Amino acid sequence: MNRPLLQLALDHTCLDSALRDVALLRDDVDVVEAGTILCLSEGSNAIRQFRRHCPDKIIVADWKVADAGEILAAQAFDAGADWMTVICAAPLATIEKSHHLASQRNAEIQIELFGNWTFSDAKNWHSIGVRQVIYHRGRDAQANGQMWGKEDISRMKKLSDIGFAISITGGLIPEDLPQFKAISVQAFITGRALSGATQPKQVAQAFHTQITEIWG
Amino acid sequence: MNRPLLQLALDHTCLDSALRDVALLRDDVDVVEAGTILCLSEGSNAIRQFRRHCPDKIIVADWKVADAGEILAAQAFDAGADWMTVICAAPLATIEKSHHLASQRNAEIQIELFGNWTFSDAKNWHSIGVRQVIYHRGRDAQANGQMWGKEDISRMKKLSDIGFAISITGGLIPEDLPQFKAISVQAFITGRALSGATQPKQVAQAFHTQITEIWG
Repeated sequence: MNRPLLQLALDHTCLDSALRDVALLRDDVDVVEAGTILCLSEGSNAIRQFRRHCPDKIIVADWKVADAGEILAAQAFDAGADWMTVICAAPLATIEKSHHLASQRNAEIQIELFGNWTFSDAKNWHSIGVRQVIYHRGRDAQANGQMWGKEDISRMKKLSDIGFAISITGGLIPEDLPQFKAISVQAFITGRALSGATQPKQVAQAFHTQITEIWG
Repeated sequence: MNRPLLQLALDHTCLDSALRDVALLRDDVDVVEAGTILCLSEGSNAIRQFRRHCPDKIIVADWKVADAGEILAAQAFDAGADWMTVICAAPLATIEKSHHLASQRNAEIQIELFGNWTFSDAKNWHSIGVRQVIYHRGRDAQANGQMWGKEDISRMKKLSDIGFAISITGGLIPEDLPQFKAISVQAFITGRALSGATQPKQVAQAFHTQITEIWG
């Protein structure tokens, strides 16, 4: 099992403040994500700027694509993204087209799991070549008190067994990590827990310490 | 049953060319939509410019929101949108928060139907006050030859009966309209069929003629 990466999600509504956090934290993370909120505010320029400021990092376009997979994948990867998110509700045709274009660009798509997806969907995604999914405890679900539970872990394990590397997100703190030990984790995604912390570099270090302790 | 509106969806990758089509066609349509592709390219400035160029039209932000409903709704409506799309896969908490904020702004959300939604979901959306859904024959599904079928019409009828006004989209041509006669249609959404036509104003006129013939 590969060592999980640490991903910084930037969901600012303004590019300048996002870039301040990029400058502060890029050396402490492996992956830098242009979040949906930022992308809808600032357009693909957010991704271009992240690429420019982080030439050696993996850049994610969190676009949650639902349609027009080929056009949007071309836009995201042309702007400098390495990974682009696709919503699980997207038709398989959209997922295929996004994945096909990503493969041509040496890039990848990640299926973001929300709502009524099924393991039969997941097997279809895997069979067309998709290798990444994002398991999400949504911002609004968190606010309503929804916690990580045994069912989450067991669903993630089942996705690992199908062959997916899973990025995990939703109010994560370093102390949460041991419960994901049996999962094939691609990245732990953290947003405000890092960028909103009083001591963000120390929080990043606490994530890395946990990752090293658990995954070596 | 209200008379369906005609909605122009602009999915350009560049704002200048979208604004050229806005100038050409705004007088021939009721609703102007900043499509997902345009919004992810140009950010919320696309919506601000549409508002500025179409002060009297209904403006749609086709953001397909999946999370962070309140923040994104505030962004869309502050930029000048009247309606904002939310993806059916969004958690109910996201839909509630988006709808709640929309109500405060005299705006509305529209649930965009893709993938595995259920009529039980639809009843939940209706019970929290949502009144609009978008029934979609996706761009990629169309390209794969998926047609409007009896099942589509029967599902739309069932959504009408729950109490939704339905916007219909996906490669529509004026000749398609009679099959939706029994449906409570909010708007017919057309993109390239209008903006890509050799005689776009004549195509818009053909839509209006059909709407008047069928709905009076």
